[in-house]
Amino acid sequence: MDFDTVIHSGRIATAEDVFTGDIGIKDGRIAALGEKLSGGAERIDAGGRIVVPGGIEAHAHIAQESSAGVMSADDYYSGSVSAAFGGNSAFIPFAAQHRGQSIDEVLDTYDARGQRSVLDYSYHLIISDPSEQVLAEGLPQAFARGITSFKVFMTYDLMNIGDEGMLDILEVARAHGAITMVHAENNAMVKWMNRKLADRGLTAPRYHALSRPELAEAEAIHRAIQLAKLADAPIFIVHVSTEAGADIVRREKFAGAKVFSETCPQYLALTRDDLDRPGMEGAKFVCSPPLRGPETQAALWHHMAQGTFESLSSDHAPYRFDETGKFLNGADAPYPKIANGMPGIAMRLPYLFSEGVMAGRITLERFVALSSTNAAKTFGCTTKGRIAPGMDADIAIWNPEAEWTVTQADQHDNMDYTPFEGMRITGRPETVLSRGAAVIRDGELQATEGQGRFFARAPVDMSGIPAVSGPEFDRACNFDTELR
Amino acid sequence: MDFDTVIHSGRIATAEDVFTGDIGIKDGRIAALGEKLSGGAERIDAGGRIVVPGGIEAHAHIAQESSAGVMSADDYYSGSVSAAFGGNSAFIPFAAQHRGQSIDEVLDTYDARGQRSVLDYSYHLIISDPSEQVLAEGLPQAFARGITSFKVFMTYDLMNIGDEGMLDILEVARAHGAITMVHAENNAMVKWMNRKLADRGLTAPRYHALSRPELAEAEAIHRAIQLAKLADAPIFIVHVSTEAGADIVRREKFAGAKVFSETCPQYLALTRDDLDRPGMEGAKFVCSPPLRGPETQAALWHHMAQGTFESLSSDHAPYRFDETGKFLNGADAPYPKIANGMPGIAMRLPYLFSEGVMAGRITLERFVALSSTNAAKTFGCTTKGRIAPGMDADIAIWNPEAEWTVTQADQHDNMDYTPFEGMRITGRPETVLSRGAAVIRDGELQATEGQGRFFARAPVDMSGIPAVSGPEFDRACNFDTELR
Amino acid sequence: MDFDTVIHSGRIATAEDVFTGDIGIKDGRIAALGEKLSGGAERIDAGGRIVVPGGIEAHAHIAQESSAGVMSADDYYSGSVSAAFGGNSAFIPFAAQHRGQSIDEVLDTYDARGQRSVLDYSYHLIISDPSEQVLAEGLPQAFARGITSFKVFMTYDLMNIGDEGMLDILEVARAHGAITMVHAENNAMVKWMNRKLADRGLTAPRYHALSRPELAEAEAIHRAIQLAKLADAPIFIVHVSTEAGADIVRREKFAGAKVFSETCPQYLALTRDDLDRPGMEGAKFVCSPPLRGPETQAALWHHMAQGTFESLSSDHAPYRFDETGKFLNGADAPYPKIANGMPGIAMRLPYLFSEGVMAGRITLERFVALSSTNAAKTFGCTTKGRIAPGMDADIAIWNPEAEWTVTQADQHDNMDYTPFEGMRITGRPETVLSRGAAVIRDGELQATEGQGRFFARAPVDMSGIPAVSGPEFDRACNFDTELR
Amino acid sequence: MDFDTVIHSGRIATAEDVFTGDIGIKDGRIAALGEKLSGGAERIDAGGRIVVPGGIEAHAHIAQESSAGVMSADDYYSGSVSAAFGGNSAFIPFAAQHRGQSIDEVLDTYDARGQRSVLDYSYHLIISDPSEQVLAEGLPQAFARGITSFKVFMTYDLMNIGDEGMLDILEVARAHGAITMVHAENNAMVKWMNRKLADRGLTAPRYHALSRPELAEAEAIHRAIQLAKLADAPIFIVHVSTEAGADIVRREKFAGAKVFSETCPQYLALTRDDLDRPGMEGAKFVCSPPLRGPETQAALWHHMAQGTFESLSSDHAPYRFDETGKFLNGADAPYPKIANGMPGIAMRLPYLFSEGVMAGRITLERFVALSSTNAAKTFGCTTKGRIAPGMDADIAIWNPEAEWTVTQADQHDNMDYTPFEGMRITGRPETVLSRGAAVIRDGELQATEGQGRFFARAPVDMSGIPAVSGPEFDRACNFDTELR
Repeated sequence: MDFDTVIHSGRIATAEDVFTGDIGIKDGRIAALGEKLSGGAERIDAGGRIVVPGGIEAHAHIAQESSAGVMSADDYYSGSVSAAFGGNSAFIPFAAQHRGQSIDEVLDTYDARGQRSVLDYSYHLIISDPSEQVLAEGLPQAFARGITSFKVFMTYDLMNIGDEGMLDILEVARAHGAITMVHAENNAMVKWMNRKLADRGLTAPRYHALSRPELAEAEAIHRAIQLAKLADAPIFIVHVSTEAGADIVRREKFAGAKVFSETCPQYLALTRDDLDRPGMEGAKFVCSPPLRGPETQAALWHHMAQGTFESLSSDHAPYRFDETGKFLNGADAPYPKIANGMPGIAMRLPYLFSEGVMAGRITLERFVALSSTNAAKTFGCTTKGRIAPGMDADIAIWNPEAEWTVTQADQHDNMDYTPFEGMRITGRPETVLSRGAAVIRDGELQATEGQGRFFARAPVDMSGIPAVSGPEFDRACNFDTELR
Repeated sequence: MDFDTVIHSGRIATAEDVFTGDIGIKDGRIAALGEKLSGGAERIDAGGRIVVPGGIEAHAHIAQESSAGVMSADDYYSGSVSAAFGGNSAFIPFAAQHRGQSIDEVLDTYDARGQRSVLDYSYHLIISDPSEQVLAEGLPQAFARGITSFKVFMTYDLMNIGDEGMLDILEVARAHGAITMVHAENNAMVKWMNRKLADRGLTAPRYHALSRPELAEAEAIHRAIQLAKLADAPIFIVHVSTEAGADIVRREKFAGAKVFSETCPQYLALTRDDLDRPGMEGAKFVCSPPLRGPETQAALWHHMAQGTFESLSSDHAPYRFDETGKFLNGADAPYPKIANGMPGIAMRLPYLFSEGVMAGRITLERFVALSSTNAAKTFGCTTKGRIAPGMDADIAIWNPEAEWTVTQADQHDNMDYTPFEGMRITGRPETVLSRGAAVIRDGELQATEGQGRFFARAPVDMSGIPAVSGPEFDRACNFDTELR
Repeated sequence: MDFDTVIHSGRIATAEDVFTGDIGIKDGRIAALGEKLSGGAERIDAGGRIVVPGGIEAHAHIAQESSAGVMSADDYYSGSVSAAFGGNSAFIPFAAQHRGQSIDEVLDTYDARGQRSVLDYSYHLIISDPSEQVLAEGLPQAFARGITSFKVFMTYDLMNIGDEGMLDILEVARAHGAITMVHAENNAMVKWMNRKLADRGLTAPRYHALSRPELAEAEAIHRAIQLAKLADAPIFIVHVSTEAGADIVRREKFAGAKVFSETCPQYLALTRDDLDRPGMEGAKFVCSPPLRGPETQAALWHHMAQGTFESLSSDHAPYRFDETGKFLNGADAPYPKIANGMPGIAMRLPYLFSEGVMAGRITLERFVALSSTNAAKTFGCTTKGRIAPGMDADIAIWNPEAEWTVTQADQHDNMDYTPFEGMRITGRPETVLSRGAAVIRDGELQATEGQGRFFARAPVDMSGIPAVSGPEFDRACNFDTELR
Repeated sequence: MDFDTVIHSGRIATAEDVFTGDIGIKDGRIAALGEKLSGGAERIDAGGRIVVPGGIEAHAHIAQESSAGVMSADDYYSGSVSAAFGGNSAFIPFAAQHRGQSIDEVLDTYDARGQRSVLDYSYHLIISDPSEQVLAEGLPQAFARGITSFKVFMTYDLMNIGDEGMLDILEVARAHGAITMVHAENNAMVKWMNRKLADRGLTAPRYHALSRPELAEAEAIHRAIQLAKLADAPIFIVHVSTEAGADIVRREKFAGAKVFSETCPQYLALTRDDLDRPGMEGAKFVCSPPLRGPETQAALWHHMAQGTFESLSSDHAPYRFDETGKFLNGADAPYPKIANGMPGIAMRLPYLFSEGVMAGRITLERFVALSSTNAAKTFGCTTKGRIAPGMDADIAIWNPEAEWTVTQADQHDNMDYTPFEGMRITGRPETVLSRGAAVIRDGELQATEGQGRFFARAPVDMSGIPAVSGPEFDRACNFDTELR
C-alpha cells in the first residue's frame, strides 16, 4: 500500500492491549496496522518507543474570559502548542456563555478564536443563562454545530445555574444526546465560609482551602447526580478532588446512574500546604476546588486505578502570576479576589505516565484510556482517541526512559510559572502527529499556526451504559412514559 | 409513703426493660416504683395491662396557619384531646414564624393558643426568615423561653430557608445547644416536576406523588446532613419517607454525623395508590413528602427496628375534607392547590403498638423508645418520657388485647376523616395520666380545658452522641479551632 | 416499707437513663426505687456517687484447665473476689468439655468448683466434642440445668469443632433457645503461619501476633455468621479484635443476622508492640486473638459507641508469669508453647468507666448496657443486670472522682502481674452488693467464701431481634417449612 | 502484502472499539488490519457481519473423569467441534489430578487426549492432592510445561483441598505467577444439608438446589479471598451463581484483593424451577453450584455489565441423560447420586450475544471482553483473544441477524440433550478461523481432527492489578518482608 507515513516497530498501546508493529498513515488517517508494513513516503522509527493515541485534553480554559473578567493567558495558538508538547493531539476547551449572550454569538466568538490552533479542537459549551430562548433554540443550534457537551456550574454567583436551571438543561441534553459536565461545589457553603473567614480577617491564600470545604464538593456531586437521575440524562463530574466525592460517584455508578467523572494531576501531586508557601507564592496554587490533604492523593489514585474516573484532565486555567492574572485585583488581594486556576496542559500526560505507568500504579492500557480513548468515547470524538484503521492519525510517540526535571520553559505556554516546577519525571512524548502531520517532531515544534481544525462531535453513545434500575428510576420512567 | 395515686400490678415497660410492679405518684410526679406499694389515695388496678410512659408527640401542626394560609382544624384543645386518646401525655407542636414576624411575636401568639391544651406542651420554632435580627436576638430569646428546637424547610417557596440561611441557623443552634429539625425535599425538583406535569395538564391528586420524587427527599437529606456537618450542629430529619433517605441517615450516623430522624405511620401503612382513590378522595392522602410504594414500607420498618429512626411521629396536619381545608382553592383544585397533610395524632401509637409490638416487628421496649423516651431525650424534655422516680407522672395504661376497627369518631379531633379508617388494631390506651391526673380514664375524657402546661426544655444533651471523626470533620474542626 | 437496706441519694444509672434517688432493698431484691425512701435497717449514703447494676462478667476462665493442660490461676474464690473488686456482682465463666467427657460430668465438676464463689455465677458450656450422645442428650441436660449458652472454637486443634459440628450444635441450640458463643479464628491460617514462622526459626513472643493474622479473624467471623444463618440460630462472637471483623458483624446485623458480639479492654488499651517488650516480658501479652495495631483501637471504640458490640468482656484467662502458667513448657518457650491469655476481670469496668465515660467516648447509660444489662439480656439472666423493682439487689456504687494508678495488688486475684500495670484510672467501684449483701464495702472485702449461688438462666429471648429477611434466609426458611 | 487470507469489510470488534475494515492473515497470524487491504489468496466477504476474536472457553470438562468416576461424554474432538460451532477458536479444559497421581502423569494423560482437538487448547490443572511432592516438584513441572493456572475445590469430599492445602498451593502459585481457580462452596454446609434432606427422605432432583444453599457459596467465596489475601496470590472464582457472592467479589476487588471471577449462562437463563420438571427431567439441570431463583438472574447480569465478572464461561460438563452419565447410579438415583453438570459449550456465546448484545444489556466491546479477551489476559494466552497485528488469526465471524431456535442437533456434541432446548436466539457465528484456517465455514465443519495444538501459557501478568492496600494486607506484607 502506498502510505504517506509509516511508524515503524513501535510498542503500540491501546486502551485494551499492547503489541509491537507498524502503523501506516494515508491522507491523515490510519490506513493500516501491521506487523511489518512496507512503503511509506516517510518512515518514523519507533523502535524502543511507545506509540499511543495522542492525548485528548478535555478540560482546558483557552482564550476564555472568566466570569470575574480575567482573560486566560493562553490563546488557541499557545494553548495548543503547549498541549502538543504535553503529548496531546486534540483538545476540547470551553466556549463560555456570559449571561445575556446568545449561543450562536458565543460559538461564533470561539470559532474565530480557534482559528489559531495547531491541534484539532472542539468546545464544551458553558451555559450560565438557561433562558427560554437558550433552551429552545440556542442549545439545539449548538448541537447542530457539533457541540454535544454542555457545562454548568453549581458555584460562583455569576455562573451558578441553580438546580431548576440544571434540570432544564439536562432535559434538553437528553433530548439531543448531549452530556452535561458539572462543576460541583455547594455555593452556599462557600459563601458562608467566605463570610466567616472575612469576619475574622483571614484572607491569606491558605484560607482559600478552608473556604471551599470537602463537604461542599461531596454535597454538590451527590446533588448533581440526583438531578441527573431525575432527568435521566448523563452527567460528567469534572475535577473530583475528594475521596468522599469519588465514593459517591462510584456508589451511584454501580446503582445505575449515568455518571462519568475525572480528576486532575494537581489533586494527585499537590496539597493544600502549597497554598501556604511564603508571601503570595500560595496564590499560584489557588484553584477550585482547592488542593486537599495528602491522604486524598492515595484515595484518588485508587479510584483512578479502579475505574471510578474515566479520564484525567488538566483543568488548565492559565492566569499569570501578575496583575493580568492572579493579581488582577492587586498584588496582595485577599484570597477570594485571586484569579482561580493553574496551568498544566503540558504536564497532564507526563505526570500520568511517570507517576502512573512508570511507578506501577496503572497499566499502559489504562494510561491510554485515561488520557485519550475514554475522552473520545465520552465526548463523541468518533475519529479520534484510538489506534485503529480509519481513525485520524492522531498519534504520540513516547520515550519511556527519558528522565527530566520540570521547568517553566518546558511548558511552551504563555505562563510565567508552573505549579509542577522541579518535579522529576520519567517518560516524555517526543513526536506528536495530528492527522498524520507532525506537530512535534523529536521534541521540536513543527506546526503551523492554524493547521488545527474544528471537529464536530457525535451525540453521546449510551449503549455501553447499563440501564438504570431501581425504584427511584422506575418512578421517573413511569413519569416519563406517562408524559410522552 | 403517702401516695396520691398508686398504679398497681402493671407490666411496666421502659425503653430498656419490662417488669411487673407498682408506681407510686405524689404531687404529679413518680415518687416510687416498687414490687408492691401500699397506700395511695387512689389505686388504679393495672393487672393485665401494660404501663408505659405517655407518648410524646413531637411532630404535629396545631392551631397553625400554613404558609398557604390554611388554619389547621385542630386547636390546642381538640388536638391535645385527640393526642390523649391516642396514648400521649405531652406534645410539641410547631410555633411558625411567617416571614417578617419577630420571634417573640410568634411565641406570644402560640402561648396564647396553648392555653386551651389538656396536655403539657412545648413548641418547636419554625423559622422561615433568618434575618440578622432573628439570628442575633430572636433565636436567643426563644432559647431563653425554653424553646430548644428549631425547624426549617428546604421546600415550599414561602418557607424554603436556603442553604446559607440554614447554615446561619445551625450556627446559632450550636451555640445554644438547640437541635434543628429539617423538612428535607429539594424544592427545585418539586417545582420542575410541577411545571412538567402542569404543562401536560396532569393535575389529579395522584400526580402529587409524581411531583415530589423520592430523589427529592434523598437529595435534600444528604444535603442537610452535609450542612450540619459543616456547622457541627445536630439535626433531626423529619418524616423520612424513602429507603434511600433512611440509608443515607444510617450511613452518615455511622460515619459520625450528629443526625437524628423519624418516620410516620402513613409511610408504613399507606401507599401512593391511596392517592388514586375515586373522585377527589385521593385528596385526603395528599401530604408531603408523599406516600410511596409498598416496597418502601418494609424498608422503613426495617430501619425502625434497626435504630435508624429515633422516633415515630404523626405529622398530624389536620385539614378537613372541605373548603376550610383540603379544598380552600376549590372542590376540584389541581393537586398543587390541595392543602398538604393528614391527621393522625390519635393513631400513631395504636398503629405502632398493633403493627409493631403485636405483629412482632419491634419489642415493647422499642415501642417505648420510639413513642416517648427518645423524643424526650432528643428534645430536652427532662422530666418526661421515662418511668423513674422524680419524673412527671405522665403515664399511659394500655390494654394489649383490645381489638378494634378505626373510625373517625375514635379520633376525637376536629376532622371529618381519618386516613386510617377501617384499619384493624390490636391494643388500646385506656387510661392516660398527665402529671398524675387522669386525662383519659378507662376510655373516657376526664380532662379540663387548659389543664396542660407549657414546659421549658433543656439544651440538647450531646453527651451520648459519638464524636464525629474523619478528615471532613477534622477540617471543619481545624477551621473552628483556628477561628475561635 | 420495711427495707433491709436503703441506698440513699445516689445518681442511679440504667441502660436507659440517669436519675437521682433511693433504692430500697428487701430480702435480697430491689423492692422499691424512690425519690426519697424512708426506713431501712441499713442506710448507705450514696451522695456524690454513681449507682449502677453490678457488672456481669460474661467471659472469664475460672478454675478451668485449658486444652493445653494449664489450670487457670484463679478459682471461684479468687476469681469472684477479683471480679467484685472490679465492680461486678455476678459472673459467667466457662464449663469446658474436654473430648470424650459427658456433659453431666462437665457440669458436675464445675458445680463443685463454683461452691467457693463470693458472687452469683453460672457457666457457658464449652463443647469440644459434639458426639451424637452429646447432641441428643448432653445439651438438653445442660439446658435443663439452666445452662442456655454454649461456646465453640473455630481454632485450636483440640477444640476446633469444624463447620459441620457447629451446624449440629446450632441446630440443637435453636431447638432449645440457646445462644452459641464462637471463638472465631481460621485454624488453618494460624497453623500455616505457625509453620512458616517455625520454618524460619521465628519463635519470640512478638511473632504470636503475626501468627494469627487479622484475616483469620475476619474470615472466621464471616463464616460463623453464615453457618448461623443457615441454622437460623443466634450466635455471639466473642472477643472481636479487628475492624474488619466488627464491620462484618455490623453489616450482617443490619442484613438481619442474629449476631451479637463483644470486644475486650486489651484490644482497646494495648497493642502488638507490647508483645515486643524486652526479654520474655512479651509473654504476658500473649492472648488469642492477639493484640493488634493502634488504628484498631479507635475503630473498636467507634463500633462500641455505635452499638456493634453488645458488651465489653474481660476474657480473664489468668496464667501466671511462671512455670505454672505462661511457661509450663519452659521459661523461654517458643510463642506457640506459651499459655494463651491474660488476666483482667478486675480491670474491665474501671477501664471502661475511665476511658469510656470519663473520657467522653460513651455515656453512662451505655456503660451500664455494655457492662451489665446487655449481658443479662443476651444470656438470660432474668433477675440481674437492671435496677428495677423485683430484680436482685446486685448493685455497684462508684466514686466517679477517684483517681488511681493500677497495680497488681489492686487486682485481688491469684496472679503475679497485670497487663494494665501503671495505667491511670479515674473512677472506682467502692461498694458492691450481691443480692443486697455487701461483697465489697468502701473498698474492703466483706464477703464470705461460698456466699455466691449458681443461677439458672432463661432461654434466649429473640423477641427483640428483627426477623431475618432476604433471599438467603427465605431459602433456608422454605427448607425449614418444608422439612418440619 | 501477500496475505493468505483477507477478511473483507467486516465490523471488527475488540474489547475496546468497533470499526469497519479488513484483516490480513499470513502464516496463521494477523499480519495487518486496514481500511482496505488488497491481495489475499483467499478473500472472505464479511460485509454485514461482525468480526470478533474467536471465543476462548476457559471452563469446560472434556475427556475428564469426575471424582465420582463418570467420564464426560465429550472428548477433545467432539468437545472442540461443539466449541467451534459455538464461536470459539480455543479452549482450556481441565487436567484433573486424582488423589495419589503425580502431576506429570496427569499432564501426560491429557496431552494424549488432546491430540484429537480441532481447536488450540491448554489445560487448567486441577489439584486434589497437594502433597509435598506435588508442591515441591509437580507444580513447578506443570509450570515448566506452560500450565499457569491451577484449580482447587472447596467442596466434594474427594476433591476438597482444605484451607491449609489451599494456602500451600497459593504460595507456590504466587512464586511462579500462576492463578488459582476456586470452586467455592462450603463443603460442610452441603453435607449437613444432605444429611437433613436424607433424614427426611427428600431425594428428588429439586432438593439438589436446597442442598447447596446460596450461603454455602457466599461463605466459601469470602473465605477463598481471605486465604488469597494472606498468601498475596491472585485467585479466580469460578461459576459465581449468587448475588451475595458477586457482591463479595466486587467489594474485595475495590478493597484491593487480587480476585477475578466468572459466571455462566445457566445462572442467567435457567432457575431452580427447572430442577422441578416432571419425572427425572430435573436431573438434566443438576449442576453445582445449583440453579438459583429468578431474582439472581438480574443481579448477575448487573454485575456482568458493571465489570465484577471478567468472563462468562460455559462450565460445559457433559453427562448424558442415561446410565453412562446422569444416571450412572440408576435411573431414579437420589439427587446426590446424579452426575453433576450440564453441557453448554456451543451455547455460551450465542446466548451472550443474543441476550447481552442484541437485548441491549451489554455492548459489543464487552461481549468481546467477556467471551475472549479477558480470558486471554487472565490465563496468559499471549497470542490469542485480540484482533491485532501479530496475534493468532483466531477469529469468528457472526451474522448478527440470524434468528434461530436452539435444538440438540445444533450443539454438535456427544450429548443427548441441551438445557437450552427451544430458546430463541438472535445472532450466530457462521465462520470460525483457528490460526487462519477455517474450522467452521458458513456453518459447515471444515476441520480435521487433531489440527488443534496445545499452547503454553505465560505467567499471570499482575501489572494491571492495583496494589492491595489496607491494614490487613500491610500486616501480611510486613510478615512477608520480614520473612524473605
